[in-house]
Amino acid sequence: MIVALAGGVGGAKLALGLSRVLPEDRLLVAINTGDDFVHLGLHVSPDLDTVMYTLAGLANPETGWGLANETWRFMEALKRLGGEAWFQLGDQDLATHVERTRRLAAGEPLSAVTADLARRLGVRHAIAPISDNALRTIVLSKDRAYAFQEYFVREKAQPELHAVRYDGAAEAALAPAVQAALTSAGLRGVIICPSNPFLSIGPMLAIPGLREALRARRTRAIAVSPIIGGKAVKGPAAKILRELGQDVSPVSIARYYAGLIDVLLIDHEDAACAAEISSLGIEPVVTPILMQTLEDRERLANMCVHSLQ
Amino acid sequence: MIVALAGGVGGAKLALGLSRVLPEDRLLVAINTGDDFVHLGLHVSPDLDTVMYTLAGLANPETGWGLANETWRFMEALKRLGGEAWFQLGDQDLATHVERTRRLAAGEPLSAVTADLARRLGVRHAIAPISDNALRTIVLSKDRAYAFQEYFVREKAQPELHAVRYDGAAEAALAPAVQAALTSAGLRGVIICPSNPFLSIGPMLAIPGLREALRARRTRAIAVSPIIGGKAVKGPAAKILRELGQDVSPVSIARYYAGLIDVLLIDHEDAACAAEISSLGIEPVVTPILMQTLEDRERLANMCVHSLQ
Repeated sequence: MIVALAGGVGGAKLALGLSRVLPEDRLLVAINTGDDFVHLGLHVSPDLDTVMYTLAGLANPETGWGLANETWRFMEALKRLGGEAWFQLGDQDLATHVERTRRLAAGEPLSAVTADLARRLGVRHAIAPISDNALRTIVLSKDRAYAFQEYFVREKAQPELHAVRYDGAAEAALAPAVQAALTSAGLRGVIICPSNPFLSIGPMLAIPGLREALRARRTRAIAVSPIIGGKAVKGPAAKILRELGQDVSPVSIARYYAGLIDVLLIDHEDAACAAEISSLGIEPVVTPILMQTLEDRERLANMCVHSLQ
Repeated sequence: MIVALAGGVGGAKLALGLSRVLPEDRLLVAINTGDDFVHLGLHVSPDLDTVMYTLAGLANPETGWGLANETWRFMEALKRLGGEAWFQLGDQDLATHVERTRRLAAGEPLSAVTADLARRLGVRHAIAPISDNALRTIVLSKDRAYAFQEYFVREKAQPELHAVRYDGAAEAALAPAVQAALTSAGLRGVIICPSNPFLSIGPMLAIPGLREALRARRTRAIAVSPIIGGKAVKGPAAKILRELGQDVSPVSIARYYAGLIDVLLIDHEDAACAAEISSLGIEPVVTPILMQTLEDRERLANMCVHSLQ
């Protein structure tokens, strides 16, 4: 069993690659829920859904999130009624939120709902929220706190990030499937997907048990850099590194994960960083890590699996 | 000011006619909420929405309920997820339920939410739920109780109706706008639309204040028969009358409303019932009451308004 820690789009890409090179019972994708929020009374889990839709082959290939062939009649009608329209909910996607909200309200844990919805959509590998408890990433600028989606979607990640807080993390427990996989005798390694360290992986590492499991690791753990050649592949990771006074470089990623991983996969563009990464006690592996095609995803997934050996 | 008491499709037809012959500030449509239910976590108000969409010119002309040019992507996706699919929720219609549910949860009364949504959809006349409190019509067969939509939609009104119960009615208060209109010095009359007496008007009459206001009436009150020539124009009214051992005739309607109305409008097909209706202390007015065209609705509306004089 391999555990992959994934955020949204970047995590889903590598998770898809892993699902194509690993048997069904050998992969658990543990997914960030720090982005989750209640919107219009609905429990929305953006990263869970991105991974679920991607593994089901239903994701929108242009955006990387949401469903393919989506329609927006609900949003148009909601605007007409004066409803909050800054967060886009597609007509089909809405069914996921309504059904999840209903089942959570009926007392089912998020991991049980997720497993069942994923199965119904045809996902064959295991996916789980990192926790069944509420976890909320809060972005702090100098003068105020933003709930994650306010910062990320409504404010388009424009506010200067001063710090990040993971509300609920200290009281949260790892989801049963994640806990079981991490402590199982069959664990063969942990892969940290190329997701944003501060916004997607950080919330998961803040839950008691995960950081400790990586620190004490009985098996190897690796990460894939979300930074290539001084830029983030997607999203605000580069901007955030600058705002935190750090270099936009895989070295900063290595520093973030120091003590938790054995290997960091970096791109050829960043080969010059290898020595500095080594000095942090992490083995750099230089390989193409940009995932544009399905073949890229599979090749990188194989590279990750081999690096665990 | 004229108050019209309306249920779903039949009520909405006459309400539309009334809205076309009365100035904006001279009509309040008070609408049954005994059909309301929480479905998939959403507060659904079928009769409110049928009247609102009809007065907004947005109703589906084929069904009489729901929105015109509706799409069903949400329902298709919900089925794929194993969700409850017996109650159809269109993609645009869903926005009404989501926004209403959100605003109710935030503490707004149903009548305030209804007034605002209606205004945003372009409804110019006043519409109000009969009450801001929970009112639930329960249909009793010999061996079990059905929540209204279970009986009406899921079971397609097939179970034999033995009795009807209006849960919450005794504790409910008339909505402020309804109470104000009924007690206003400017009240010019009450019109009971051709809705199902047991399922649509009965729940409203069970709320303290309405029956009393009609009984003591300072202005005239009239009703339009939902039965024409031994048949219900729409829905299970005829079947229910038979199950309750009553004739499928406007006479049974007159008996139901005896003491509450001055006039009952009946169709030419039922002219033979006039004498028996008179004997109940209600003046029968024989006129075409079937509403097929917009002109039919306006003509009947005018007839109702004249009968109040």
